[in-house]
Amino acid sequence: MKIGIIGLGLIGGSLGLDLRNCGHIIYGVSRKESTCKIAVERGIVDYANINLKTLSTVDIIFICTPIDLIYETLKQLTSHLKPEVIITDVGSVKSSIVRECELLWPNFVGGHPMAGKTEQGIEAAQKHLFKNAAYVITPTEKTAKNSIKILEDLAQSLGSVVYTCSPEIHDQSVAWISHLPVMISASLIAGCLQEKDKSVLKLAQQLASSGFRDTSRVGGGNPELGVMMAQYNKSALLHALDGYRQQLDEITDYINSEQWDSLQKLLTMTQQERSPFI
Amino acid sequence: MKIGIIGLGLIGGSLGLDLRNCGHIIYGVSRKESTCKIAVERGIVDYANINLKTLSTVDIIFICTPIDLIYETLKQLTSHLKPEVIITDVGSVKSSIVRECELLWPNFVGGHPMAGKTEQGIEAAQKHLFKNAAYVITPTEKTAKNSIKILEDLAQSLGSVVYTCSPEIHDQSVAWISHLPVMISASLIAGCLQEKDKSVLKLAQQLASSGFRDTSRVGGGNPELGVMMAQYNKSALLHALDGYRQQLDEITDYINSEQWDSLQKLLTMTQQERSPFI
Repeated sequence: MKIGIIGLGLIGGSLGLDLRNCGHIIYGVSRKESTCKIAVERGIVDYANINLKTLSTVDIIFICTPIDLIYETLKQLTSHLKPEVIITDVGSVKSSIVRECELLWPNFVGGHPMAGKTEQGIEAAQKHLFKNAAYVITPTEKTAKNSIKILEDLAQSLGSVVYTCSPEIHDQSVAWISHLPVMISASLIAGCLQEKDKSVLKLAQQLASSGFRDTSRVGGGNPELGVMMAQYNKSALLHALDGYRQQLDEITDYINSEQWDSLQKLLTMTQQERSPFI
Repeated sequence: MKIGIIGLGLIGGSLGLDLRNCGHIIYGVSRKESTCKIAVERGIVDYANINLKTLSTVDIIFICTPIDLIYETLKQLTSHLKPEVIITDVGSVKSSIVRECELLWPNFVGGHPMAGKTEQGIEAAQKHLFKNAAYVITPTEKTAKNSIKILEDLAQSLGSVVYTCSPEIHDQSVAWISHLPVMISASLIAGCLQEKDKSVLKLAQQLASSGFRDTSRVGGGNPELGVMMAQYNKSALLHALDGYRQQLDEITDYINSEQWDSLQKLLTMTQQERSPFI
């Protein structure tokens, strides 16, 4: 197949490397000439250009821009394409994107390859980034079956574990296991800093070890990413925050009213029920 | 010095190994004959016995029992001792223990060596467990200066980083960085399980990766330990839970009312302020 990739960062670049290795011909588009040059030199793409017009002959396009540019990119793109071209994206939130994009381009299929690392940009692109990682494909009731199948096959060829579900089920799931943890972890750091007794805060900083380190990790991550999750997945995240807070209130109530048996039961349950997630 | 150790588990056993290596003579007491035998065979103690009376000639005693047995052990012990004997403990909560124990034994000095590992019992005892770990000593206004000095010197000889503060400052600090994380992490697991849409829960379990794994880790730990933290450090933990919840409510409010600049500011702050804890 002829495959277009728009946005040659970590995800777009890594997709290029693996898909090209599978025998596809890769057309890359980046806003920067310098990135285009690196992409060709590193064998990430066969052709690279700053102009979207160069994608007029491809069969499928991966939009790998930041989430807030996906819709805009699609708008600029459509006039250059024949209607049978499949367009997909790699955004970490799906419902708000997919529902808007499919109105503009009926052959749009949402996707979310759940791989990543701390380093960003084309320099960080690597082979096999998606191997054994989840790749969620989020068709709607309107999506053409054949387009779903083509994207599923491509994701499988990357070595990913493919899940197919509605955009809404995807968004609620990642709200629980990815976006909620950021907010509760950030609240832990911010909560500690609210401590008025400065000798307590100082000692807390000195004594903090692995428990605090792990629980606070994602709350110390990229702020822009955290805000974007909240913006694009607002209602699912609020649903998770609401359920979480009820649970926190229940634990607090057990402690306050010294219901130690209930606390023991709850902590035994969480000990047992963690493993299906891990 | 002649040093007594009551409770020859991971902490008591590891203390024995290092203190004996420093040239002290170690008298161990365990409830089990079999543990006494292992302690002598492994060179953890010079002498071991199931009877507290055998500690009548020592200079300092470490009570290394579980936290709920410290006070009871002290009560059984005092009749065998001369008043100049220093008694210390290794409990992870200090105020409730220290304030009671010093009434019974004026020469009681609270301590909390903050080292550990998953394995428990005398088989897990090892050399250098306390090296570079925090050792918090928690005297009160009544504690004899000389007794504090002796315990500080012993802790330093283990290679520990010694902190000396009131039991209350210790308890509030560990509530923030150790006990609160357990409760918020357990609430994350329990919150996810409250999700009524079972297809969301199933996908969440399939997609959960490093962010969920780290944030939920301490919530999947030993339930007995979690309950004991809450029982013995109730008021400090409730203070931390209260401050944490205010913070969580603030974040939720930012998301609900789409105050993205405020959320960005908060997440930028938590990103910057995590490092003093790590």
